[in-house]
Amino acid sequence: MVSITKVGVRFSSCGQRLKQPVITRLMATALATPDLLSLAAGFTDTAGLPADPIREVVDRILRQPGLPESLQYGTNAGRPVLRELLAGRISQQDRNPSDAYKTDNLFITNGSQQALALATQVLCDPGDIVLVEKPTYFVYLDVLRGLGVQVQNLPVNDHQRLDLERLDEWLDQLERKGALGRLKAVYLQGYYANPTSRTLSEAEKNGIAEALRRRGLFLPVIEDAAYRELYYKTLPVERSILALDAFADFPRVYLGTLTKSFATGLKVGFGYCTDQEWLNRILFLKGQQDFGTANFNQAILEEVLRGDYLDRYLPTVRRHYERKMQALHQTLEAEGLRDGGWKWEVPSGGLYLWLTGPAGIDTAIDTPFSQRCLAHGVMYVPGDLCCGEDVETHFVRLSFGVLSPSDLRLAGQRLAEAIRSGADAAS
Amino acid sequence: MVSITKVGVRFSSCGQRLKQPVITRLMATALATPDLLSLAAGFTDTAGLPADPIREVVDRILRQPGLPESLQYGTNAGRPVLRELLAGRISQQDRNPSDAYKTDNLFITNGSQQALALATQVLCDPGDIVLVEKPTYFVYLDVLRGLGVQVQNLPVNDHQRLDLERLDEWLDQLERKGALGRLKAVYLQGYYANPTSRTLSEAEKNGIAEALRRRGLFLPVIEDAAYRELYYKTLPVERSILALDAFADFPRVYLGTLTKSFATGLKVGFGYCTDQEWLNRILFLKGQQDFGTANFNQAILEEVLRGDYLDRYLPTVRRHYERKMQALHQTLEAEGLRDGGWKWEVPSGGLYLWLTGPAGIDTAIDTPFSQRCLAHGVMYVPGDLCCGEDVETHFVRLSFGVLSPSDLRLAGQRLAEAIRSGADAAS
Repeated sequence: MVSITKVGVRFSSCGQRLKQPVITRLMATALATPDLLSLAAGFTDTAGLPADPIREVVDRILRQPGLPESLQYGTNAGRPVLRELLAGRISQQDRNPSDAYKTDNLFITNGSQQALALATQVLCDPGDIVLVEKPTYFVYLDVLRGLGVQVQNLPVNDHQRLDLERLDEWLDQLERKGALGRLKAVYLQGYYANPTSRTLSEAEKNGIAEALRRRGLFLPVIEDAAYRELYYKTLPVERSILALDAFADFPRVYLGTLTKSFATGLKVGFGYCTDQEWLNRILFLKGQQDFGTANFNQAILEEVLRGDYLDRYLPTVRRHYERKMQALHQTLEAEGLRDGGWKWEVPSGGLYLWLTGPAGIDTAIDTPFSQRCLAHGVMYVPGDLCCGEDVETHFVRLSFGVLSPSDLRLAGQRLAEAIRSGADAAS
Repeated sequence: MVSITKVGVRFSSCGQRLKQPVITRLMATALATPDLLSLAAGFTDTAGLPADPIREVVDRILRQPGLPESLQYGTNAGRPVLRELLAGRISQQDRNPSDAYKTDNLFITNGSQQALALATQVLCDPGDIVLVEKPTYFVYLDVLRGLGVQVQNLPVNDHQRLDLERLDEWLDQLERKGALGRLKAVYLQGYYANPTSRTLSEAEKNGIAEALRRRGLFLPVIEDAAYRELYYKTLPVERSILALDAFADFPRVYLGTLTKSFATGLKVGFGYCTDQEWLNRILFLKGQQDFGTANFNQAILEEVLRGDYLDRYLPTVRRHYERKMQALHQTLEAEGLRDGGWKWEVPSGGLYLWLTGPAGIDTAIDTPFSQRCLAHGVMYVPGDLCCGEDVETHFVRLSFGVLSPSDLRLAGQRLAEAIRSGADAAS
């Protein structure tokens, strides 16, 4: 029998800062609630995942003559051919020749999440500041809090877009607070962001670079492009920070993944780092944390890219997600949510609808609103979790990745009923 | 084109502490030296890796009726059935019923390395102290240095075994130095340790627990059992710290892996933690660093365990490694290394021979000894890398995991020639 420890463990400052993420509570609630339709989980569509291609590729790899090197350890940075193929892929998405981006700058990780965590950990001490959009990827907010980092939200205008006109004044304010010296990085989601499904325009990205450059603040910039491949109709015309001249003097990490676009369960992501010292330290830290992502998964995805499986698969998946987005969006419209003061944009890629509720709505966990939704059998991610320091509580993130179109319609109806029941209660 | 950053990045204290591991230099030398036989890499034998079983299992999993859930995200802690099977397996190895160890205490990681790094990171701040054996697993020394942790070597006797008689006196010394308050953990390798291939006796483990208990030091104890399954003839009789009464009041993490014993390229390891708060923080941190190990790999290994593939495979692999150990060991004996004052034990499991050179030998990187070995076309891991603070430079770690028996004989001959050529030069 394993007995239970009687004496408390003394944790590091890192260990002490770690808290249970709210999302874990949401997941536990979801599991404990029968017949719940969850619009909360940011998963992909299980039915659409490429079982046959993966089976075919594994069969081919493991029947190859010679030693089964895919079952041996790989290197810390990842398989050279996979890295070359991925560098070529993002280079072409940026309308460069396929060899413009260097294999040596690209490293493979356990999902792009690991690349993001590593890139941040080597930069940030407690008390440092990272600039993020509002809203932003809520798991990254956990990473930053875990490191003791302060989050500052970049200014937003009335259209919930980056307020470029206010950027200089906003940096003045940070300077007056003495905060510029603690700025360590900027984190942007370039494409079909989680939670808004918005894509940053090149003008928005360039505006940030220029405002920072005017102050000589050549901060490390991280662009998270996890959803770039999940456009519905056409590849976004916006180039990444790797290609934009305004960022030429900035150290940059670009994050991508095959987890969202292809085989989620294989969890292979990557980072592309323009700064040799930053890259070295990311790799040294990865060497300590796991010394390399599973070589087998990389070998599978190398063959997937080389054999053109990904590009044959993606058109179907893109149409599929667009259809699911439409199922949820059209249900919410048909149920009259817009008339009730709710607003949302119709995304052209990604896995999320981002709803802004009318004044007075509070969507946070354990609020009456949240409880009404659960009582009606539907769950969402409260938008305040995505806000950072500057919290607002009238947002809702709805994911249409997991549920089928018919379940999405039902979930949309339940959400609308829950909202109407609250309006009735208030009147 | 991606341009090169002109402005330096300011790193965190973690980032600043990170240095290129010496092992990376060894690997670069190995790649740059034609016809080199490397006894340095701690890899498994590629030829023996289970290509057919993995192919069969993948085929079965991906042809199952229903949704391909193995290609979806898993949970942060890992697949429940795999965790249950692994908990049962270590429980039986400790001669307990298969349900004595709880599934909830076991978490899946990217190799046991990740479990080790997570368990340590939530405990240790810069300046803290971790107790390790001498020699110990050198990648863990990098992890500790990366965290700014001081390493203290547990006392060793003339037989290069833990000196239990000196433990109390040694703890007295630490107390006089005021160091007891900074002690955060003890790290032990229970089975066929890297680099010595030694197994700790229950008396050795218990002796540590009792010495700590006498002072009320109920430190977290980590037992690394990565090589436990790689015995040659019979399962080690020594039980783990999970089963020993002397450790009942200590918070414990036990580390295991399927990476060494089965499919290296899948990189699935695990930790078993007896302390709920320690476990929580490990999982919160994993949630930030990658929120879960690749679900596909876990699904494969779950099926491997359930279908008894592992236990059908292991006897062959064990015989194979024993044969390779013998090939290297017997070559070194036949070449007269023992007559030259070199000593080693013949292991009963694991992947390493640990050689102690005669007085005056310096095996460190860039020494004449090391250069002579390279000139003779053979490479090893210098033992000083495995020492911690209390460095000695007359050890050599030889790995027989990778090379074939005939290459191992050739490598052994080359090593002996290099040693003789040094003796000639000195005489």
